[in-house]
Amino acid sequence: MKELFEPSCIAVIGAAREETKIGHIVLKNLVDSGFPGKLVPINPKASEILGLKCYGSILDVPDVVDMAVICVPNEHVPDVVDNCGKKGVRAVIIVSAGFKEMGKEGAELERRVAENRQKYDMRILGPNCLGVINTHAKMNATFTRNYPREGGIAITSQSGAICSTLLDWSKEVKVGFSKFISVGNKVDIDEADLLEYLRDDPRSKVIGLYIEGTDRGIDFMKQASLTSVCKPVIILKSGRTSSGAKAASSHTGAMSGSDKVYEAALSQSGTIRVKSLEELFDLLLAFSSLAPLGPGGVAIVTNAGGLGVLAADSCGDYGLSMAAFTPETIQKLKAGLPEEANFYNPVDVIGDADAARYEFAIRAVMDDANVSAAIVLLAPTDRVDIPSVANLLASSAGTSAKPMVATFVGGVDAMKGVRILRQAGIPHYESPDRAVRALSAMVEYQRSQHVKAKSKAVQVHGDKAIVRALLDQVKAEGRMGLSESEGKSILKAYGIPVPSEGIARTEEEAVRLADRIGYPVVLKIESQDISHKTDVGGVVVGVASAEDLRKQFSLLLSRVSSMAPRARIDGASVQQMLSGREVIVGMVRDDSFGPVITFGLGGIFVEVMKDVTQRIAPLSDEDIDEMIRSIKAYPILTGARGKRPADIAALKDVINRLAQIARDFPEISELEINPVIVMDEGQGVNAVDALVTIKGGSK
Amino acid sequence: MKELFEPSCIAVIGAAREETKIGHIVLKNLVDSGFPGKLVPINPKASEILGLKCYGSILDVPDVVDMAVICVPNEHVPDVVDNCGKKGVRAVIIVSAGFKEMGKEGAELERRVAENRQKYDMRILGPNCLGVINTHAKMNATFTRNYPREGGIAITSQSGAICSTLLDWSKEVKVGFSKFISVGNKVDIDEADLLEYLRDDPRSKVIGLYIEGTDRGIDFMKQASLTSVCKPVIILKSGRTSSGAKAASSHTGAMSGSDKVYEAALSQSGTIRVKSLEELFDLLLAFSSLAPLGPGGVAIVTNAGGLGVLAADSCGDYGLSMAAFTPETIQKLKAGLPEEANFYNPVDVIGDADAARYEFAIRAVMDDANVSAAIVLLAPTDRVDIPSVANLLASSAGTSAKPMVATFVGGVDAMKGVRILRQAGIPHYESPDRAVRALSAMVEYQRSQHVKAKSKAVQVHGDKAIVRALLDQVKAEGRMGLSESEGKSILKAYGIPVPSEGIARTEEEAVRLADRIGYPVVLKIESQDISHKTDVGGVVVGVASAEDLRKQFSLLLSRVSSMAPRARIDGASVQQMLSGREVIVGMVRDDSFGPVITFGLGGIFVEVMKDVTQRIAPLSDEDIDEMIRSIKAYPILTGARGKRPADIAALKDVINRLAQIARDFPEISELEINPVIVMDEGQGVNAVDALVTIKGGSK
Repeated sequence: MKELFEPSCIAVIGAAREETKIGHIVLKNLVDSGFPGKLVPINPKASEILGLKCYGSILDVPDVVDMAVICVPNEHVPDVVDNCGKKGVRAVIIVSAGFKEMGKEGAELERRVAENRQKYDMRILGPNCLGVINTHAKMNATFTRNYPREGGIAITSQSGAICSTLLDWSKEVKVGFSKFISVGNKVDIDEADLLEYLRDDPRSKVIGLYIEGTDRGIDFMKQASLTSVCKPVIILKSGRTSSGAKAASSHTGAMSGSDKVYEAALSQSGTIRVKSLEELFDLLLAFSSLAPLGPGGVAIVTNAGGLGVLAADSCGDYGLSMAAFTPETIQKLKAGLPEEANFYNPVDVIGDADAARYEFAIRAVMDDANVSAAIVLLAPTDRVDIPSVANLLASSAGTSAKPMVATFVGGVDAMKGVRILRQAGIPHYESPDRAVRALSAMVEYQRSQHVKAKSKAVQVHGDKAIVRALLDQVKAEGRMGLSESEGKSILKAYGIPVPSEGIARTEEEAVRLADRIGYPVVLKIESQDISHKTDVGGVVVGVASAEDLRKQFSLLLSRVSSMAPRARIDGASVQQMLSGREVIVGMVRDDSFGPVITFGLGGIFVEVMKDVTQRIAPLSDEDIDEMIRSIKAYPILTGARGKRPADIAALKDVINRLAQIARDFPEISELEINPVIVMDEGQGVNAVDALVTIKGGSK
Repeated sequence: MKELFEPSCIAVIGAAREETKIGHIVLKNLVDSGFPGKLVPINPKASEILGLKCYGSILDVPDVVDMAVICVPNEHVPDVVDNCGKKGVRAVIIVSAGFKEMGKEGAELERRVAENRQKYDMRILGPNCLGVINTHAKMNATFTRNYPREGGIAITSQSGAICSTLLDWSKEVKVGFSKFISVGNKVDIDEADLLEYLRDDPRSKVIGLYIEGTDRGIDFMKQASLTSVCKPVIILKSGRTSSGAKAASSHTGAMSGSDKVYEAALSQSGTIRVKSLEELFDLLLAFSSLAPLGPGGVAIVTNAGGLGVLAADSCGDYGLSMAAFTPETIQKLKAGLPEEANFYNPVDVIGDADAARYEFAIRAVMDDANVSAAIVLLAPTDRVDIPSVANLLASSAGTSAKPMVATFVGGVDAMKGVRILRQAGIPHYESPDRAVRALSAMVEYQRSQHVKAKSKAVQVHGDKAIVRALLDQVKAEGRMGLSESEGKSILKAYGIPVPSEGIARTEEEAVRLADRIGYPVVLKIESQDISHKTDVGGVVVGVASAEDLRKQFSLLLSRVSSMAPRARIDGASVQQMLSGREVIVGMVRDDSFGPVITFGLGGIFVEVMKDVTQRIAPLSDEDIDEMIRSIKAYPILTGARGKRPADIAALKDVINRLAQIARDFPEISELEINPVIVMDEGQGVNAVDALVTIKGGSK
């Protein structure tokens, strides 16, 4: 990867003389950005381009070439890649389009590129990408002429147009970039690789990603987790809603995974997810411009009470705490501000405030130990001299170590100040809520940094051999679904408690079992062909006596036979009847991210209230804690309405063990325990049902 | 009110010669805006200001004066108001500050202003306000020099600085205003009055309000409801969160009501509530610039797939439906666009699109009958000529009757296009989500317009005399809380079913009652001193037999006596035991808005899941329907998980009757039925408990 960002010699393959051709623009951009290394244009029909000696093929170049940018038509790309390999090029950028995004033929070309790459020790970015910018190496290896200033923001984007947008934006707000990477179709290098590289890049202070989807969810999560411990990773993941997802797949051919899985993955890996381009801008600006916030709350200084109220509202919305000033600060403000002013937070310096009054108030609150940062608001009242306030903020920007952001609302007049603020590197937001949102993201990120590294969950071991044998048998029989008792044997093999039970083929067997288990019991139909027993009347609860059991047993069998005439029935299971809070613990395997673990309270809470949470395995102990605590119905487990708390420790253990099963047996595509009965504290749990599905045919 | 907006002669009282004084600025603004009527400066120390003859007192003016702007120091204002009354002035604007917002003395001055006003047939705006602008009357009766262009937006704002902000914004985005009203302290004229006036003002196409609180909630709702049927009313209500509300009360002295009550009031009256200044800007721009949307969905045209996906995501977020193109449109797009383009919605004209290609695609989708509006997105790619695309949109703006909005993302380059769009009156939004949000608000508003006028709920009549006598007795005894059986008599008097029950003083009485009611029964302590019976162990459910009842009765009495030794116990009520779904119906009286009706499912759903809804009485039949349907747990009432549907008709009736009780007896400050047992369809409801509190001392 080093050669991609800091090459000594770059070949531009397909370099052209015509100024409008991409092969020309790329070469010219490299020259214009002042790239200090060697540049070699490759074009069999030219001897010199832009004053640089041209070669007919990369194989003809006498020097060592460590990076190449390919701009030739798509059909030539596989061969050119092969030549690059032969020449010993370590990093290749394929700018050319016409691959996976263009249907079958393009996909075949892309497959050949991948194949050729693997013959050599070589990394490829693209195809169908804008290229790479490294401002600190003065390298604009893209076909965009918008070369940004140096700065602390690193960007990777799956959309070239989003790259252009960010570059244009940066000119307006005067922020700079360290690295700029357009990933294109990701035949090789993807976000996971780039996160790994950028993590150790001292020039990159904050990383922004625009992503539509990834095929390497597990690696992505791993790299994102490791990186977000070192620096903030801000992610705009599109294709969130069903209509968005449709557009995404027609755009790049990347299948967007279900957004709930991404939501879990992004949050679990400590990244900051934004929902819009504007929020991406806002957060990049804050993280790249500001020092981390110290302890305390924010102070708001405004020349308009209404704006102060709006900002305070937003603090509530985003959970950003407002500073409570010390009595000394309030005293100071009272002494120095007019009597109509407000001396508490938000400080209202009122409509006729001049720059000096703003300065006084800002200094007073910044000196307060309870203040971590300031938000300076300004409304374009008739009495305020906007440029002079802006100039004052600009000149005092360095005097306090505490971060300051500004919001000058309005339009034409406000902009006169905004330009000054941007020039001075003071983050400006167009409305108070955006300023608050940006600071709140910083506080949230810092808070997450202080949480000590997540501990791994207690490692559990199951009896793999039992499960392996059982799954092999199921596969041998050509089945995808397991019966309840098969499912429960898997749970038992991994130490998840199941209720006392047995399978009865006859009334007499049922009564013998129930006598041993103790009344009341639950009676459930046993059949490999029925996965939703209640739908066919296959469950009877609260069977209280032997007499009752005899009656219910024959009723059950005849009812199910008539509801599901084709199902093979193996009898009925007789189970201990348990009481406690019902929860669901389940797993669905995602193609990209692996096992997604779901948890929620059973029945109405899942079906009606949709009160569930998801995490991707492996789970840390904290992940499991968070899952349980994050559902709205959590108080029901801790003992709402006078009940005793449930056995949450035992529930955590079930989630951990289920995640382990999912990791140990990749062929299990779905596993649900519904319900798990969680009894009172200290009394454990029981998995009352188990639904297991394996991948058809595979392995 | 007419004289406030269209006066023939305006006196400026406190007109000054010094250019920096507000009294000078107001007069000058009136002159500069080209006010065609007569202007009379009042200043005892001057003979002429700005070439206008000056009078020492308004009483000296020979002409009829129908409007006056008062700019004198606060202590003189009450007398000046009195003089205005004597002179027969019909409308007065008090620009001067130093009233309620400045503490006790100011509040006293304000009280005197109100007192003097009432002696005459005169309306007052302010004090502590910026004034009034009426662009169509060329009247700038404010002290802001930012005189806006003519247009369709009317604004009323409780913050002068928000006024300035909107005016400055309008210059930037080139939108115009009809009326601009800064309401200040609202000693007389408030938002309710202004909504009533603006409703019939043909110049005002959309109304925007910034409000921190109102003392006249009921009138406000009435006027807002009537107005939002005629034109959109967009409201930025600040003081939403607790920290915001604190800032609001220190700002103007207006006590912000609980935000939940405002939320209910604003939604019930059909207004559109925005959460930020930026959203206010965005919606004002859309509603004032665009024609209503026809049927169908929006089409998105973009030169960047990524932007299209983001816009589609936002459509999902905001529930804005995207058009499905007809086969003809898709055919047309396929024929006219490059093969790499996307021909479905969002249409991707790809990065090298020029203005002609944009035009082709926009025309094709606008001609599609399934398309109601277009969102044109542009990313500043290297190949696009931004000003030429903008010019094309500008010139074709009138060619389709369907609304079009644009989003040119980026910064410096994008702005070159944005300026052209604004000049042409095409609404521009900085990011796709904001464009989608604005259009979605329009669709939502239009949808609400199509709902036929809300029908009044069926009028119910209760036996007022019974309730009146009971409440009088309670008051006579100096109590604020009613016992359960008193509460239930009120319910019964209004036709709300209560279970069969009776009060037993002894075991024997209890058994006699239970024999009549039928087992099982519920036993509850009866005491005027105990409002939360379960907290003192005062409720026993499922008493199954006479034997059981005897045992429980004495246990209950001794338990409660020990838990609440000071409570006077009148025995225990014996109630029919009912089963069904438990809901809560309640009422709390808000000082400003009146009875606020709350509904939710009982127990865990209210206490843990906070799944409740609120509306302000009087309730229409639709309001009650909406309340019931809006809770998340609604499927539990309709029959989730195989249950029979509940008797929703009977539940609606209970809500309606409870609202009627609240309206008939203003001294009831709180009334809660928890639970109402809702039985299966056709089987009715029963109010199992009733908690009633009356206002202490009043009336």
